[in-house]
Amino acid sequence: MSDLRGGIDLGGTKIQTAIVDAGGRVLGEARHPTPTSGGPADVARTMEDALREAAAAAGVRPGDLEGVGVGSPGDADGETGVVSGARNLPGWGGSFPLGETLSTALGTEVRIGNDVQVATEAEFRLGAGKSHSSLLGVFWGTGVGGGIVLDGRPWLGRGAAGEIGHMVVKRNGARCPCGRRGCLEAYAGRAAMEAKARREQAKGVKTEIFKIMEKRGKDRLTSSVWEHALREQDPLTESLIRRAVRYLGTGIASAVNLLDVEAVVIGGGLGVRFGERYAEQIEREMGKHLFLADHPPQLQVAELGDLGGAIGASLLFAR
Amino acid sequence: MSDLRGGIDLGGTKIQTAIVDAGGRVLGEARHPTPTSGGPADVARTMEDALREAAAAAGVRPGDLEGVGVGSPGDADGETGVVSGARNLPGWGGSFPLGETLSTALGTEVRIGNDVQVATEAEFRLGAGKSHSSLLGVFWGTGVGGGIVLDGRPWLGRGAAGEIGHMVVKRNGARCPCGRRGCLEAYAGRAAMEAKARREQAKGVKTEIFKIMEKRGKDRLTSSVWEHALREQDPLTESLIRRAVRYLGTGIASAVNLLDVEAVVIGGGLGVRFGERYAEQIEREMGKHLFLADHPPQLQVAELGDLGGAIGASLLFAR
Repeated sequence: MSDLRGGIDLGGTKIQTAIVDAGGRVLGEARHPTPTSGGPADVARTMEDALREAAAAAGVRPGDLEGVGVGSPGDADGETGVVSGARNLPGWGGSFPLGETLSTALGTEVRIGNDVQVATEAEFRLGAGKSHSSLLGVFWGTGVGGGIVLDGRPWLGRGAAGEIGHMVVKRNGARCPCGRRGCLEAYAGRAAMEAKARREQAKGVKTEIFKIMEKRGKDRLTSSVWEHALREQDPLTESLIRRAVRYLGTGIASAVNLLDVEAVVIGGGLGVRFGERYAEQIEREMGKHLFLADHPPQLQVAELGDLGGAIGASLLFAR
Repeated sequence: MSDLRGGIDLGGTKIQTAIVDAGGRVLGEARHPTPTSGGPADVARTMEDALREAAAAAGVRPGDLEGVGVGSPGDADGETGVVSGARNLPGWGGSFPLGETLSTALGTEVRIGNDVQVATEAEFRLGAGKSHSSLLGVFWGTGVGGGIVLDGRPWLGRGAAGEIGHMVVKRNGARCPCGRRGCLEAYAGRAAMEAKARREQAKGVKTEIFKIMEKRGKDRLTSSVWEHALREQDPLTESLIRRAVRYLGTGIASAVNLLDVEAVVIGGGLGVRFGERYAEQIEREMGKHLFLADHPPQLQVAELGDLGGAIGASLLFAR
């Protein structure tokens, strides 16, 4: 057995795998699109394929890994390896024994964690957060997720801590994809931003963003579509990103007023892409609401980029 | 030296003291009004008098106490015993060596803590929170303060954690006494509620609450004035309390979505008085915003009532 570990980041769009050594270096990686039809067993098979590919690239057999960690959406039970209610994955409304299935297929131990929490820990141990003892990870993507590290340890609450995307930033405000009103995610999540762009267009607002989407062969507004529309200075795109940034700053400040962490790390698809560019505006918005405005936390962009989730998953074997 | 400890809760209105034994029982107590003029030295003298009175009631000399803890507003430095920027106390905008002053006067060791945090710990160890390992204390009074216990230990952040009153529940919303916009305290803090009542009356809204205030010889809307106005079914009073309760439910749910604690304990002047009566409405409002609406935290009213702060302060000697 080697001291290498596998990590799998199971996302709604892609499955990213990595083989990571004890020092956190990535020796091999692979990325497959997440199946959009079928069910949990098909998703598990794609995960297996992607992990085998990364292992081959690293020159190791899956069975020789110390173990494989998975960062999973939905309700991921670390004890049993069962994942339930992962609604952004095909046919995964119920429960599926993901840990057991992958462990049998790969011939090594598999541990399951929460996708956002493992990505936060990766940044805490190896990335932007490594000089701090407490941090809030904010994952700005399709939704807005959050992970918390306090005093060097993950804070999971009763299992569901960190839902910064569902903190209320505007009572009676916009409808969130979760069905509630006024959540941060209702303003800053990519899915909510796309829905708002469609509503604006339907109302007659001119925008190039959907043409850009089609030209790039996408059926929804991915991070790269937003990026290109910004580059073409599409006014609706600019205004929706500015709005997201305002609410992100407000929501992060609100969380910091409660937790008073040393650092905030912004990751996720939009965060990695736009974090650097908008950091100053996010900080300015935070400044309007921070209780200790002259003592803000350090705001940093995730350093591990797209690989953070897979690296963090591998750290499930480094505790 | 006995195993008895003193506790002093230093509030803007009153100074409450208690002599507490190792089991958390109160053997003597005293309450003095907080001086409204003079400076920190005058406040310290009143604290000394009140503590001596409680000690006499318990049949112990201050010098024989294991120590005296103080729950202080402002920026209370536990290391140095210096309290700074306690703006609700007369002439206390700067720094004052409260710990040293009291220690010399009383002839025993003095430790200084944050008022809200020590009251939260009192509820955690001896009151409504004692069967839980994590809790959020919400102190609904002149302002809205908060204290956090996670995994059995207070979470203080960089020293300022727990400011639930300054979480943003409505971006661009009402002006808060802190100067910012949309904070929970702007809707639910007694000072903000009084300011709103005065504005409504100036706009011509009829209300009995200021007459009740005068009849009771008060110059501001104390908790007991709100209570009496509610009893007389004053419509403005009812509407402002309902509004406070709605925002409290929203803000608490928002905090719980981030922290996922087991329990929420509501204390403070208004909380102790109205918590039981409005618990169901607070829970209903929380339910609209909780990410795990079918798994809410337990909502409880502080059990130690007005003495919680002084008892919690005494616990600074039980760590």
